[in-house]
Amino acid sequence: MGGISLGYNQYGKAECRLVHVDRSTPTHQITDVTVTSQLIGDFADTHLTGDNSKVIATDTQKNTVYALARQGGVGAPEAFALRLARYFVDGFEQVHRARQEVLLHGWERISTSTGGPHDHAFRRDSSETRTTVVTKHGADELVISGLSDLVVLKSTGSEFHGFPDVPYTSLVETNDRILATSVTARWRYLGTDLDWDKAFASIRRILLDTFADHHSLSLQQTLYAMGEAALTAHPELAEIRFSMPNKHHFLVDLSPWGLENPNEVWYAADRPYGLIEAAVTRDDMPADEAAWAGITGFC
Amino acid sequence: MGGISLGYNQYGKAECRLVHVDRSTPTHQITDVTVTSQLIGDFADTHLTGDNSKVIATDTQKNTVYALARQGGVGAPEAFALRLARYFVDGFEQVHRARQEVLLHGWERISTSTGGPHDHAFRRDSSETRTTVVTKHGADELVISGLSDLVVLKSTGSEFHGFPDVPYTSLVETNDRILATSVTARWRYLGTDLDWDKAFASIRRILLDTFADHHSLSLQQTLYAMGEAALTAHPELAEIRFSMPNKHHFLVDLSPWGLENPNEVWYAADRPYGLIEAAVTRDDMPADEAAWAGITGFC
Amino acid sequence: MGGISLGYNQYGKAECRLVHVDRSTPTHQITDVTVTSQLIGDFADTHLTGDNSKVIATDTQKNTVYALARQGGVGAPEAFALRLARYFVDGFEQVHRARQEVLLHGWERISTSTGGPHDHAFRRDSSETRTTVVTKHGADELVISGLSDLVVLKSTGSEFHGFPDVPYTSLVETNDRILATSVTARWRYLGTDLDWDKAFASIRRILLDTFADHHSLSLQQTLYAMGEAALTAHPELAEIRFSMPNKHHFLVDLSPWGLENPNEVWYAADRPYGLIEAAVTRDDMPADEAAWAGITGFC
Amino acid sequence: MGGISLGYNQYGKAECRLVHVDRSTPTHQITDVTVTSQLIGDFADTHLTGDNSKVIATDTQKNTVYALARQGGVGAPEAFALRLARYFVDGFEQVHRARQEVLLHGWERISTSTGGPHDHAFRRDSSETRTTVVTKHGADELVISGLSDLVVLKSTGSEFHGFPDVPYTSLVETNDRILATSVTARWRYLGTDLDWDKAFASIRRILLDTFADHHSLSLQQTLYAMGEAALTAHPELAEIRFSMPNKHHFLVDLSPWGLENPNEVWYAADRPYGLIEAAVTRDDMPADEAAWAGITGFC
Repeated sequence: MGGISLGYNQYGKAECRLVHVDRSTPTHQITDVTVTSQLIGDFADTHLTGDNSKVIATDTQKNTVYALARQGGVGAPEAFALRLARYFVDGFEQVHRARQEVLLHGWERISTSTGGPHDHAFRRDSSETRTTVVTKHGADELVISGLSDLVVLKSTGSEFHGFPDVPYTSLVETNDRILATSVTARWRYLGTDLDWDKAFASIRRILLDTFADHHSLSLQQTLYAMGEAALTAHPELAEIRFSMPNKHHFLVDLSPWGLENPNEVWYAADRPYGLIEAAVTRDDMPADEAAWAGITGFC
Repeated sequence: MGGISLGYNQYGKAECRLVHVDRSTPTHQITDVTVTSQLIGDFADTHLTGDNSKVIATDTQKNTVYALARQGGVGAPEAFALRLARYFVDGFEQVHRARQEVLLHGWERISTSTGGPHDHAFRRDSSETRTTVVTKHGADELVISGLSDLVVLKSTGSEFHGFPDVPYTSLVETNDRILATSVTARWRYLGTDLDWDKAFASIRRILLDTFADHHSLSLQQTLYAMGEAALTAHPELAEIRFSMPNKHHFLVDLSPWGLENPNEVWYAADRPYGLIEAAVTRDDMPADEAAWAGITGFC
Repeated sequence: MGGISLGYNQYGKAECRLVHVDRSTPTHQITDVTVTSQLIGDFADTHLTGDNSKVIATDTQKNTVYALARQGGVGAPEAFALRLARYFVDGFEQVHRARQEVLLHGWERISTSTGGPHDHAFRRDSSETRTTVVTKHGADELVISGLSDLVVLKSTGSEFHGFPDVPYTSLVETNDRILATSVTARWRYLGTDLDWDKAFASIRRILLDTFADHHSLSLQQTLYAMGEAALTAHPELAEIRFSMPNKHHFLVDLSPWGLENPNEVWYAADRPYGLIEAAVTRDDMPADEAAWAGITGFC
Repeated sequence: MGGISLGYNQYGKAECRLVHVDRSTPTHQITDVTVTSQLIGDFADTHLTGDNSKVIATDTQKNTVYALARQGGVGAPEAFALRLARYFVDGFEQVHRARQEVLLHGWERISTSTGGPHDHAFRRDSSETRTTVVTKHGADELVISGLSDLVVLKSTGSEFHGFPDVPYTSLVETNDRILATSVTARWRYLGTDLDWDKAFASIRRILLDTFADHHSLSLQQTLYAMGEAALTAHPELAEIRFSMPNKHHFLVDLSPWGLENPNEVWYAADRPYGLIEAAVTRDDMPADEAAWAGITGFC
């Protein structure tokens, strides 16, 4: 039996809530993010002996998030995460790798009846979140962005049949069902010098378009079509991964009371739910599993 | 010491998840609601002896929600809650009172790049919820509607000062702060024969406009202004009540590192939070506290 | 149409998280509470004009919670809530009424293999919470205590039948089902000079005993039996109210595959759920609805 | 630019809620689990063409969970997950790999005042969850078990100092602080023929003992000590990984009001929080990262 040692380790400050207000003009811009900073490197001592002489305190990491936001603003989540990652990796010998996650929470300007879009009043627009995780390992910088909790539903245009009648099968085939899911998608960008906001808007647009227009024979097929469309349109993407729960809507059986139910009245179930997860990849791309750790539920 | 007896009681089925699809034209309409049905009446026996001969099973209440949705659709939450309340109170002698809550979850049509608003594909648009609670007591019908989780923020136009320096005061006065809250508002309608959707849209619009345009000396003042504006514009409202957490944003002190922070970089705190609750009422309206039970955190 | 005015209002600081460590001996005692302080009184000005000269800042209320914990510790939640309520009502002319809620979160000492109960290491013992709300209105002091999220289940000893076969009924009668609920109970104490911890422990014990031993013909019957037992044993209780969701467990139908299922394999459902709410009262007690506002879902 | 293809994919039914009652004696045993079944294999067709002829419906996977529970009970989560994994991998050619997660929710028998431990009445004992993920790839079976949400706190015996004063550092050194965390631990067992319940109980015991008795110079040091103790005592463990949030407790500054605070009154913060994650490994063990996918936040 071998000796015992410290394996992979990382530490940092999670969920720093930061709101940045750009007041350079009377029309304020706000950027609302949640930042998680994690560092990987020469930190064995604190684990083994409690010697903290190399430990950049998690409190310091938090202060750094705020201080860098003050010096240069936030901007796109990818840009801010890259700045943080570079600050830590380039500035501290003991930091071999930094993993910086930035979640962007959306707000829209309140448009008032009399004044149109307001200068400084905003409404939180959705529970959807734009995400990025930047991992910088020495000079290597990997950017995995995405979105979570984009909840979508189709009231028709979805079938599911042709599955085998193996033991314990009772599901009835259908050629018309509600298809609903909460899309979590993550994609790896090639390069770090992109127009992040433009790329994000376009990819999100493609995912929505494809979900809406694709006639679905399975949620898997819809997922693949969404990924394929994104990769086709965006050569700067190496790969896209999805985790898509099948949020089941069951047709309510009203026949005991002599009522037909021609796909009109549905029960929206919570649990259990189908869970479809897959990657759509581009051939000849190097895998980079380490960058994906902790990002989706699979490698 | 007096005897022991059964006091107020109600029972029912909570959180029936119902999605109704109107497929009468190729352009589907979806209505996504969560219904809680509660009945009050001659139900002492089941408590005292376990005799259930008057108990309309909660499972039956759930089935009724789906069956009524099939026969006549859902429509405005107020209309659906009224139909349910009338069904139970008018149809069953033992039911003296019904309390029907309907939460409406918003969806917006996906607008695709090529096709515009989609016929049958939708996106969940926000965590905001439109609410109604209908209480029918015999012939008496009370409708309390509202909204919850309308999250709004102003990056300026908010002051807070002039509070007394009582013991344990350390808060610093400010004439420029972020004001953010998650509005829960409930209003009681006079009458039951209204254009519910139009009234709701207008009241919501007024709340947003007032929040945006009101220069705030306290969250209390903003709250009152919102309520006053709604009552002024809508004579069909008897009263409006608010529960508005003060979602604190604290200016980050960067001075230890020689950085000014002119209201640009903020820390958004979770707990504790201020909590401001108040009613704005119309004089000479009869109080109807029973209808408000369980709706806001105060009477 | 009457004029518009300010109705009932209250404000304060919600969810102050406070951990008190009694270090007077090497065997530390910890008390972990969440305190919500609310004040009611002469606060119209801040609503109407933004004049805050009477407003005890919510930040000050929070500081007061910590300062009073330092001066005298926390002790029983009821005792701490009373101290806070008296501090505010007795100390400030503009405060006519105080509502102080204290939630107590349980910890148990870690008992180590070698040393037994540990001096200063603890484990959070459950999601169950002990609660109190003290309302002091002038000299009047009302204490409503209770517990929430006490999740219990009986694998037999529960029946449900004899309900009427009204329209939309499909539920099958049963004389053996799983009964599960998450008990929220609130009781009003008579008087303020009680051994709070002893009373709480005894009432909780009675609720558990009754749930376990009572043969149930309906959840309503079980609820009433629990309340009756508590009131019978505790003359210092004026009333007890319950909110008890029926956490449905459905027997899985395995007959399509030739398998019997004699009450062994169950599906635990999330939503919808039955919701049973009732008060068990003592005759000749004055109602005190104002004190109950916001505490249970009904009056 | 290469072609686009389907990468790693898995699908199944998530969060099947199952309660099994062993009624073989009047003293019932209950087992409450949440099962997530996922299959990996020859499922490209459903993604690429919508041909579902190889797709074992997620509904069927759910039925299988209940049917296998009926035939042989549940037992230890590891045993049940292994049975499920073998059923799918051995029974279906298109299934190359199965990932079965079982969460065990704890209940304890209600002990009544008069009757002692009850035959059939139970109380949910904690939010802590025992977990297992079994991955079977052909003949290869990997078992990663653990626990989540084990919340612990030490009121003394924790220091943190000696960290470098890098830019943006403001944290003050301390030799006496509260240390609190919510332990998520996962360990990989060597072999599949173990007494799972005994191993789990012992490892959990060791983690608690070590947390309690270890004098901490950093949360990292405590984490490592916990892992080292578990591996030392349990040769059947290949590795253990931890994710431990530092649930900060901040000493409240009461000095503005002339009050000392000798580590007695603390504010328990929510966000941000420190996050310490590390693996403690045994030398010469083969890494098996694929089995860890989606289990902890890092590889």
